[in-house]
Amino acid sequence: MASNVEDDLASVSLKQSEDVVTPWEVHTDNSGGVDYDKLIARFGSSHITDDILKQFEETVGKPAHYLIRRGLFFSHRDLGRILTSYKDDKPFFLYTGRGPSSQSLHVGHMIPFLMTKWLQETFDVPLVIQLTDDEKFLWKGLKLEEAINLARENAKDIIAMGFDVEKTFIFNNLTYMGQCPEFYQNVCRVERAVSFSQARGIFGFSDSDCIGKISFPAIQAAPCFCTSFPKIFGHVAKPETVSCLIPCAIDQDPYFRMCRDVAPKIGMPKPALLHSVFFPALQGNQTKMSASDVNSAIFLTDTPKQIKNKINKYAFSGGQTTVEEHREKGGNCDVDVSFQYLRFFLEDDEQLETIRRDYTSGELLTGNLKKTLIDLLSKIVTDHQANRCKITDEILDKFMRPRSLNFRFS
Amino acid sequence: MASNVEDDLASVSLKQSEDVVTPWEVHTDNSGGVDYDKLIARFGSSHITDDILKQFEETVGKPAHYLIRRGLFFSHRDLGRILTSYKDDKPFFLYTGRGPSSQSLHVGHMIPFLMTKWLQETFDVPLVIQLTDDEKFLWKGLKLEEAINLARENAKDIIAMGFDVEKTFIFNNLTYMGQCPEFYQNVCRVERAVSFSQARGIFGFSDSDCIGKISFPAIQAAPCFCTSFPKIFGHVAKPETVSCLIPCAIDQDPYFRMCRDVAPKIGMPKPALLHSVFFPALQGNQTKMSASDVNSAIFLTDTPKQIKNKINKYAFSGGQTTVEEHREKGGNCDVDVSFQYLRFFLEDDEQLETIRRDYTSGELLTGNLKKTLIDLLSKIVTDHQANRCKITDEILDKFMRPRSLNFRFS
Repeated sequence: MASNVEDDLASVSLKQSEDVVTPWEVHTDNSGGVDYDKLIARFGSSHITDDILKQFEETVGKPAHYLIRRGLFFSHRDLGRILTSYKDDKPFFLYTGRGPSSQSLHVGHMIPFLMTKWLQETFDVPLVIQLTDDEKFLWKGLKLEEAINLARENAKDIIAMGFDVEKTFIFNNLTYMGQCPEFYQNVCRVERAVSFSQARGIFGFSDSDCIGKISFPAIQAAPCFCTSFPKIFGHVAKPETVSCLIPCAIDQDPYFRMCRDVAPKIGMPKPALLHSVFFPALQGNQTKMSASDVNSAIFLTDTPKQIKNKINKYAFSGGQTTVEEHREKGGNCDVDVSFQYLRFFLEDDEQLETIRRDYTSGELLTGNLKKTLIDLLSKIVTDHQANRCKITDEILDKFMRPRSLNFRFS
Repeated sequence: MASNVEDDLASVSLKQSEDVVTPWEVHTDNSGGVDYDKLIARFGSSHITDDILKQFEETVGKPAHYLIRRGLFFSHRDLGRILTSYKDDKPFFLYTGRGPSSQSLHVGHMIPFLMTKWLQETFDVPLVIQLTDDEKFLWKGLKLEEAINLARENAKDIIAMGFDVEKTFIFNNLTYMGQCPEFYQNVCRVERAVSFSQARGIFGFSDSDCIGKISFPAIQAAPCFCTSFPKIFGHVAKPETVSCLIPCAIDQDPYFRMCRDVAPKIGMPKPALLHSVFFPALQGNQTKMSASDVNSAIFLTDTPKQIKNKINKYAFSGGQTTVEEHREKGGNCDVDVSFQYLRFFLEDDEQLETIRRDYTSGELLTGNLKKTLIDLLSKIVTDHQANRCKITDEILDKFMRPRSLNFRFS
């Protein structure tokens, strides 16, 4: 069990001058983006060091995913414990989720699911995906049926990324809470272990927040302990021995920091985490891509023409103002959004390095860099759409039907 | 719709020197018991006046139940609206509940159910009964399975009082929340409409209270709007047109005051209420009978001998210290607990009046008054036990099975 220091909930509070990173807002005044080293120190998580990377690659017997190698998943909690116990033939399960606030996912939303899919395939473990339609109902003023509908539409986007129905259960809270008594029972177990002052300390709730917001963290926490859900994990003899690994963007960490504080109080293992950086808005590193700002995001429903226009028009450039100046001084990859996006999506390490070198030297012009990104994202989005249109309601219902994931934990 | 003034949530706060009346504590320094007139003024409910009593009796075509006639149900909200719409052939449904904190009910717990049963028979309307095992889990430190078990045991006591299975649905939250998505959806609708500061104003929550307590009021509120539960009221074409009447002790009013504030925000009718006074502890009017203090209460599992001993030993007497003094000065029925209990349970008005007169004059001695109560409660409790032992798990499951109450609302 990890030291309690990292879970000292009261110690995590936001000072003025610091980057704003909460589940509902990400913002920094720093043009280079969020200071992730400072964030790790503030949140009390751990860097993915060379040592843990080596342990990871030795455990899986292959190179880590490029998102890890490139430091886009950069922080973790208890990853070493998961790897050690996995090596001892004690598998785990994966848990991730999404708050369905828009009809379509944007490309940034793909990142945790890309990672999760690779982890599922690499470790051959079950996966539960929570769609927090209740969160969006509480925060966004949606109608119940709107929130549920967004959850189902988003689930289709997720399924289209290629998850294995035999090992994956997707659920939306507004429906599944009413299908699984153990879900609400887990919620109550978590709720009892978190005081209002702790929740306020972690999430910054105010007196004017509705009471649903205040207890919502327990809803997002509950699936960390879902090995007690009989329909899904009915075959697990000792639910308290099976760990959970959560790949997510680091803004979701507050929920799971709370979870890790709660876990020993309810006799369950602390969930482990693998944190990604934020996927930047087209306009730059100061904030993350947001589905509620159409011009900040490239959606999985966008046409190649829309993608081309958005990137050419909005993608913040690290290049110089004239070709001559660019040839002379070179571009700045650290702030160039197109280059950042390539780091997330261009799998070929060599090609990425060539682009980085040539853009930095000034040999590669902004227009050409953007064209590489436009071509890549157009292909990714077009391929996704081809998969997405095959996801019928019937397929969706298969993923969302409560059923045994039929995985043998030793 | 009633004026908003009565639902001005912020206006209800506890001044020092006032009687303490919350869902979790009832206490007064006044030996005559809680000052109910002041409580009505503080809570903003209405007296059951001669006018509303007359309207009630005209509507049902018979005398009101003795608990109403004797002022033991003394306060209401919107009872007139329920009666008027009932007369116009628009029936309502009944909702009441119980927090299962002990294996057995005590005799005071029977009072709201006696009233509810009479209302159900008189108006021929459906009834939902919520067992808040989640509340007891959150407040009392029980294990989940203990809380659920208490709920089931308490349900058997309730069923033994003679409810009609065709028109009565009993549920415990820890199970039913996981069987009815519309339950959690209603909870979310209520949660979104109540701010933390409102909840704190009504219930007095503190920073150290767990987040489950803070959102619990929405759980108790949700069944007020349960005409949207498809399995129970699936035949109701317009759930928003069917009203709810809640018989309960007045300490539960804060929940429903909150509900009445929420109702118009979510497009549902405000629940109406019928409030009882508290059933006093054996030790006197300053507090209510409590299952957690064994010597304050007569349980439905007590033997005639236990009942005799408890009443003789603990029932606070309004009589004088010697027979001679009692003959001379007479007894005080207002503080005499045995007499108070007879008001709750002795149906014969004439006999009760004779006892009151003779005890007040000093003709009737305390021992004889207590004997009348001992005989009456022994019979009630023994009869209850005879019914209770017939309530098998099979019968219980019939009452707790989600199913259509099959009632035709016009």
